[in-house]
Amino acid sequence: MTITITAFERSPDGGRGLARDTRVRWALEEVARPYDARLVSFRAMKEPAHLALHPFGQIPTYEEGDLVLFETGAIILHIAEDHAGLLPADPDPRARAIMWMFASVNTVEPPILEYANAKLLEADKPWSAERLPIVADRVRARLTQLSARLGGADWLDGTFSAGDLMMVSVLLRIRASGLLDEYSNLAAYVARGEARPAYQRAFAAQLAVNRR
Amino acid sequence: MTITITAFERSPDGGRGLARDTRVRWALEEVARPYDARLVSFRAMKEPAHLALHPFGQIPTYEEGDLVLFETGAIILHIAEDHAGLLPADPDPRARAIMWMFASVNTVEPPILEYANAKLLEADKPWSAERLPIVADRVRARLTQLSARLGGADWLDGTFSAGDLMMVSVLLRIRASGLLDEYSNLAAYVARGEARPAYQRAFAAQLAVNRR
Repeated sequence: MTITITAFERSPDGGRGLARDTRVRWALEEVARPYDARLVSFRAMKEPAHLALHPFGQIPTYEEGDLVLFETGAIILHIAEDHAGLLPADPDPRARAIMWMFASVNTVEPPILEYANAKLLEADKPWSAERLPIVADRVRARLTQLSARLGGADWLDGTFSAGDLMMVSVLLRIRASGLLDEYSNLAAYVARGEARPAYQRAFAAQLAVNRR
Repeated sequence: MTITITAFERSPDGGRGLARDTRVRWALEEVARPYDARLVSFRAMKEPAHLALHPFGQIPTYEEGDLVLFETGAIILHIAEDHAGLLPADPDPRARAIMWMFASVNTVEPPILEYANAKLLEADKPWSAERLPIVADRVRARLTQLSARLGGADWLDGTFSAGDLMMVSVLLRIRASGLLDEYSNLAAYVARGEARPAYQRAFAAQLAVNRR
């Protein structure tokens, strides 16, 4: 059955791989599953045809036969359940890998999003200069805890899993700020993720779209 | 096997049911699974014994034999996979219920958290009065989209699922602001969740802790 995902016609990040389709591309590359990418414009994302697929008007979406999914974490979990390579087979390690998927988007990403909002949406506000360091410290609080848990390990819980795929992707969003590099083990962890051939292929695929 | 969760010794909300242990209690009540709750103080949550269970120093955690989980969404998904009643049996509706679990914490909750942070952590800042309406509009943007998708349905995708349990729980956090009541179908949706006997039992259990 053909898998079709949606991606930005032109990503706001200009092809740095931070748009969420990269996460889904990466997962599909890890399990060696071919897919089609349908590109959508910002305008088309807010129109009824796309909103029928994704009620929040975003990318990526995932279509496979009659199944339509949005929400990156759910798409990646679906892929991981259908193909070997992204979740351990044993029940307890499997549950912990899923735990890290949720931790990525529910615990680590929210302060990172808040920081991005502060920089992107509130840069022109009179409070911007005073408020940004406060928000940066909220990011640091989470990174400090994550760094302590990771310690000297390669991955969050044994072998590479969908939990690492999600966490590395979330951490990539904060790298340009310099905050990630304050934690050498987290910076190395992200580099380890980026070095995976599947990540490289996913990154190249989204870059090709944005270089057209 | 005994299930033990952790909860606040004294919840910051004074027992209004907004602490995340209520979500896990609700899931366990839906599947009629008994559990023990171990109460932890704010101080104990930041100490090594608790950090070994939960690297971000929060509640709830979930212990069942050798399995230790944190992250509410992952705990609820684990419960739902082990017991009937929270996820549809058919693969496609099941994947969509999990999609709504992720949408709750990754798409709808972040602006709600940002709003809570603006009120709780930045109330004394000089920008508070001017900034709060901006953040409130970010919440409205999501609630408008969610309201459009729910329409006149009782639940997000057919029968009640763990996706609804999570979404109702997330929406409850914003009710006191008045924003939820701007969307009558969402307010009715949340009331429908609260009316479930399992929710009532979960709410009573956390209230009993906070009334001691």
